Amino acid sequence: MATHMERATSGDVRADYLDFAHTGPGTLAGQFMRRFWQPVHVAADLSPGHARPIRIMGQDYTLYRGESGEPHLVAFRCAHRGTQLSTGWVEGDCIRCFYHGWKYDGSGQCVEQPAEDAGFASKVKIGSYPVQEYLGLIFAYLGVREPQPFPRYPEFEGEGVMGVSSYVRPCNYFHNLENGLDNVHVLFVHRGAPGSESYLDLGVPRIAAEESDWGIKERVQRRDGSEQVIEGGMPNVLYIPGQGIGNRGTKVDFLAWRVPVDDESHLTFNVNIAHLTGEAAEQYRQRRTQQADNTAAVATELARAVLRGERRVGDFMDHPLLVNIQDTVAQLGQGVIADREHERLGRSDAAVILLRRIWSREMQALAEGRPLKQWTRTSAARARWALH
Amino acid sequence: MATHMERATSGDVRADYLDFAHTGPGTLAGQFMRRFWQPVHVAADLSPGHARPIRIMGQDYTLYRGESGEPHLVAFRCAHRGTQLSTGWVEGDCIRCFYHGWKYDGSGQCVEQPAEDAGFASKVKIGSYPVQEYLGLIFAYLGVREPQPFPRYPEFEGEGVMGVSSYVRPCNYFHNLENGLDNVHVLFVHRGAPGSESYLDLGVPRIAAEESDWGIKERVQRRDGSEQVIEGGMPNVLYIPGQGIGNRGTKVDFLAWRVPVDDESHLTFNVNIAHLTGEAAEQYRQRRTQQADNTAAVATELARAVLRGERRVGDFMDHPLLVNIQDTVAQLGQGVIADREHERLGRSDAAVILLRRIWSREMQALAEGRPLKQWTRTSAARARWALH
Amino acid sequence: MATHMERATSGDVRADYLDFAHTGPGTLAGQFMRRFWQPVHVAADLSPGHARPIRIMGQDYTLYRGESGEPHLVAFRCAHRGTQLSTGWVEGDCIRCFYHGWKYDGSGQCVEQPAEDAGFASKVKIGSYPVQEYLGLIFAYLGVREPQPFPRYPEFEGEGVMGVSSYVRPCNYFHNLENGLDNVHVLFVHRGAPGSESYLDLGVPRIAAEESDWGIKERVQRRDGSEQVIEGGMPNVLYIPGQGIGNRGTKVDFLAWRVPVDDESHLTFNVNIAHLTGEAAEQYRQRRTQQADNTAAVATELARAVLRGERRVGDFMDHPLLVNIQDTVAQLGQGVIADREHERLGRSDAAVILLRRIWSREMQALAEGRPLKQWTRTSAARARWALH
Repeated sequence: MATHMERATSGDVRADYLDFAHTGPGTLAGQFMRRFWQPVHVAADLSPGHARPIRIMGQDYTLYRGESGEPHLVAFRCAHRGTQLSTGWVEGDCIRCFYHGWKYDGSGQCVEQPAEDAGFASKVKIGSYPVQEYLGLIFAYLGVREPQPFPRYPEFEGEGVMGVSSYVRPCNYFHNLENGLDNVHVLFVHRGAPGSESYLDLGVPRIAAEESDWGIKERVQRRDGSEQVIEGGMPNVLYIPGQGIGNRGTKVDFLAWRVPVDDESHLTFNVNIAHLTGEAAEQYRQRRTQQADNTAAVATELARAVLRGERRVGDFMDHPLLVNIQDTVAQLGQGVIADREHERLGRSDAAVILLRRIWSREMQALAEGRPLKQWTRTSAARARWALH
Repeated sequence: MATHMERATSGDVRADYLDFAHTGPGTLAGQFMRRFWQPVHVAADLSPGHARPIRIMGQDYTLYRGESGEPHLVAFRCAHRGTQLSTGWVEGDCIRCFYHGWKYDGSGQCVEQPAEDAGFASKVKIGSYPVQEYLGLIFAYLGVREPQPFPRYPEFEGEGVMGVSSYVRPCNYFHNLENGLDNVHVLFVHRGAPGSESYLDLGVPRIAAEESDWGIKERVQRRDGSEQVIEGGMPNVLYIPGQGIGNRGTKVDFLAWRVPVDDESHLTFNVNIAHLTGEAAEQYRQRRTQQADNTAAVATELARAVLRGERRVGDFMDHPLLVNIQDTVAQLGQGVIADREHERLGRSDAAVILLRRIWSREMQALAEGRPLKQWTRTSAARARWALH
Repeated sequence: MATHMERATSGDVRADYLDFAHTGPGTLAGQFMRRFWQPVHVAADLSPGHARPIRIMGQDYTLYRGESGEPHLVAFRCAHRGTQLSTGWVEGDCIRCFYHGWKYDGSGQCVEQPAEDAGFASKVKIGSYPVQEYLGLIFAYLGVREPQPFPRYPEFEGEGVMGVSSYVRPCNYFHNLENGLDNVHVLFVHRGAPGSESYLDLGVPRIAAEESDWGIKERVQRRDGSEQVIEGGMPNVLYIPGQGIGNRGTKVDFLAWRVPVDDESHLTFNVNIAHLTGEAAEQYRQRRTQQADNTAAVATELARAVLRGERRVGDFMDHPLLVNIQDTVAQLGQGVIADREHERLGRSDAAVILLRRIWSREMQALAEGRPLKQWTRTSAARARWALH
C-alpha cells in the first residue's frame, strides 16, 4: 500500500513545513536546527594556536583554538574592513586580524587596535557562539536564544575504543539523514559490501517506526524473528547501538550527525565506540587504523563517475571506500536537493515518513510561536541498555 | 548587398519565432525538435546489460540495453525516492533501481518492489520513449504525440564501409547546424587542413539555396563551373553526398545530426559510408581506424586556449584534430549562444538565411496550431543519385 | 575615534555614489573610470602580427599589433556572424576574421569581404578605441567622449632601469586601490617580508591625507619623525616615490594602476624605475631578473589555500611570492567584492576615507551633469622632486 505524505491545498505556508532542505538564515528549517547544539569540527583536527574558517548552514564563522587549548567560535570577518579572521594570528585566547591587527577575545570583544586611539576598541564587538568539546568533537550553539542544555551520551563516555571522523558529501544533509533511517537501502545499495552479506541472508526486513522521547525508534524486523533497533535523535542524529556494517563482529555503538554546510553539501560527524578493553581493544584499534583517512573526496569523485555513466558501482567491489561510494551514489543520485513532491512512498518508508511528520509538526509549531517538544535521550539510553 | 532578416516590430511573440537556440521543455523550438526522431547514442557504445544517463534538449533520461540486446529509454529517476536509475542493475529487459530495488520494464511499468506489499507496483509507471536502432545509432522519439514514421536513408544501407561517431561541443547546436550549410567557412576556418586545399584553389564559391521536400538544397558553385550540392534535412540534419574534407579522394556520403544536450552544448552524430568493396574497402578501413577516437574534449581544450589568446590556430596545423579544433574555435568564438540580432548577413549566407526562414515559418505554424510541412527525403535521395 | 562614512537617508540614489565596485557599462563608477586613459596590456607581451582578446571593466575587445608594430583596439566580435576577432589573422595593420575572412582596419572599418559583392564592406564598421604606447604599457581610452589629454609621468621617462609587469587578482579592483593608500597594512600583512622589517621597527605610523591637484597626498608619519609621501592619482593610480618593499635599499619610483577586468577580478599594471646608471644599473638589473615572471596564478592558489584554512601565511615566509601571497590573502579575505556598509573605520583609515569622499563627490557630479574636477599631475610631480 502506498502512503503518500499529503501537501495541503491551502497554499505555500503549509508547504514550508515540508521544506527540510533549506537551512540558511531566515528559513524555518534553519531556525529549527539552530535550536540544537551541533558538532562543527573534529577536535583533533584543530591544534592550539590554529584558526579555521567554517561554514555551517550557509553561514561563515571563525573557529580557533586558543594557545590554552580552549576552542572559540566568533564571526567570520573583522569588524574593521571585513577581512576573514581565520587568516590572522591566535595570541593567547584571542585572535588578531591579518589586515590591521585588530585583536578580539573569545567573546568577540575587540581588545586592541594598534593604529587607533584608545577607547575605540571597547566599542567594537563581533559575534561569538558557545562551544563545547565532547566525544572528540567541537559542538557549537548557533541559535539566537539561550542554548538548550548540552546533550550527553553516557554510554560513549565509558571505557572502550573510540573512533571519531567526519566527511563532506556534496548533497543536501536531509538525504543522508533519511538514509540512516532507511534500512532497506542496505540490501541494495550495499550489496556486496563486507558485513552486509549477513543482512542480505535475512531477506527484506519489515520496518516499524514510533515516536520516542528523543525522536524516532525504528524496529527492523528480520524474517528469522531477530530485531534491530535504530534511533533517530531529533533533529539530525543517527544512533545505531550494537553493530554496524564492516565491523567484523565487534559490538560497536554508532552516532552520526548530519550537519548542513550549506543547502548543497553537508558534513557527517561520526563517533563510535567499541566496548573492548585490554588486548581485544588493542587488536581492534590496529585493525581500524588501516581504514582511517579522510577520503570522502575520492569516494565522491568515483561516485560522480558512476552518475555520469562512465563507471559502474560494480567496478569498485574491492575498493576500501566501497560503502561510502555506494551511499554517495544513492544520495547524489537523488539530485543535490531531492524532489520530495513526486515520490511514491511505501510501507517500508515508515521511518522516513515519521521523521518528516515530526519535523513538519515541530516546524509548524515554531512558525506559530507554540512550544516545541523537549527532546530527551533518557529513555532512548534506557532502551539501548535493555537490548544488550 | 546586405540581407538582414528582419525582426517584427509587433513585440515578443514574433521574436520567439527567431529563437532557435532554446530547446528545453516549454520552448517553441524544443516542441518543434521533439516532432522528429533524434539520434541519442552511438549504438556500439552501449553494451547489453548496461545503462547510461543521457541528457537531450535539457531533459534527462535513462538509456539502457537489455540483456537481450534491445535498447530502452525510460525516465531519469525512480518513482520511489527519485534516485538516478542508470546507477542500478539491468536484469533481462528490465532495470532495477540502485536504492531500494524497484524494477521497471522497458515500457516504464514498475514490475517489482522488494520491500512493499503486492499490488503497489502495478500502480507505478514512469515515462518511456520509443527507440530504434539504425545506421549504428540509437534514435529516440521524445515528443508527446504519436511518432512520425521513422526516416530511412537507403543509400547508407547498401554495401560499403560505414563510419559512426559522435562528439560533444560546448556551444549551442544551432551554431553547428548553420555551419554545415555555410560553405564559405571552409576557405577560412579550414585553411591549411588536409583536403581543404582543393577547395581553396577553386576560389570563393557562389552560394545558392532553395527549399526542397526535405529541407534545403544548397548549391555551391565554383569558378571552374563545378557544383557541389549539400542538403539540410529538416530540422537538424546535414547531408553531404560525394566527398568531404580529409577523405583523400575516396567518395564518401556524410550525414550529421546536431542534437542539443542542453542550450549550451550539443552532440553531433556522424554517419558516413564509403561505397567501396573488397580490397579497396579494406585499405580504407585501415586508414580510417587511425583517425578514430573520441577526442572532442582535447579539441575543445585547445580551442579554448585559442579563444583565451594563449594559443593560435596556426600552432596546430599538424595536429590530427585540426579540423575539429578549427570548427570549435569558429563556433565557440560566436559565444555559447550566438547573438543573431546584431549580424550583418550577406548573399553568401543564403543557405543560413533560408534555414532560419523555414524554421521560423514552421515554429510560427506550430505556435498557431496550423499544420506543419511534412518533410520527406524521397526527392532528396533522387537528387543525390542523379548527381552521381 | 571611529569615523564612519555616512550613507544618506534619502534612498538609493545617493547610495549609488558609494558604489565604486561596479564598473560595467551603465554603472556610474564605470562611466567615471571611462573618462580616463587606462593601461590594458603590457606592451612587450604583444608581438607584431598578434591579436589578443582582452576584457576591461566587463567589456570585451580585440587588441592587436599590426605588422608595422602599431597597436590597435577594436570590437571583440566580427560584425558578420559575431565570431571572436582575435582568433583571426593580422594582415598589415588590419585584422581578418577567422570565420569568413572579413577584414577590418585599425579604425574598425571593414575593408574586405571575400564572398560578398563590392560595396557592402564600406557600409560595415565596428567599434575602435584610441590606444597609446607609453612606459612599456598599452593604454586605451574606452569612453564615448573625446579622450582627455594623455597623462605623462616625466620622471619615469628619464635615464634608469625600468620594470614593467602586470598581474591578475580575482577580487574587485577597489580592494587593491584602497590597499595601496592603506599604509598600516604593511605592518601586519607584510610581517616578515624582506624590506618590511624596517617599517616595523619604526612602529605604527600616523596617517594624514589631503586632496591634491592629482588626487590624494598621504603622509605616513613615523615615530622617529621621518615621513613618507604616497600619492593616489585619480582615479586608480598609486604612486610611491623613493622606495618600496623588497628593493634592498635602491631608490625606486613606483606606479601602479588597478584596472577592473570585471567586477570580480582586476589587473594591476606596475611600472617602476630605479634611477641608476652604469655598473649600478647593471647589477640592479640582474638582481631583478630573478624576481620576474608572471606568477600571480601561483600566489592566488596559495592564498586560496590559506583562505580555505588548509595552509597558513606563515608556511610561505621563504616563498619568493610572499608579498603577493600576503596581499592576496588580505584582499580576497575581504570577499570578492568588499562589504563597505558594515565597516568600522578609524583615524588610520584617513586616506581610504578621503579616496571614497573624492570618488563619491565626482560620481555625484557626473550623475548630475556638473563638471568634474580636472586632475593634473604637475604639482604632484613638483612635490616629489621637492622630497628628493
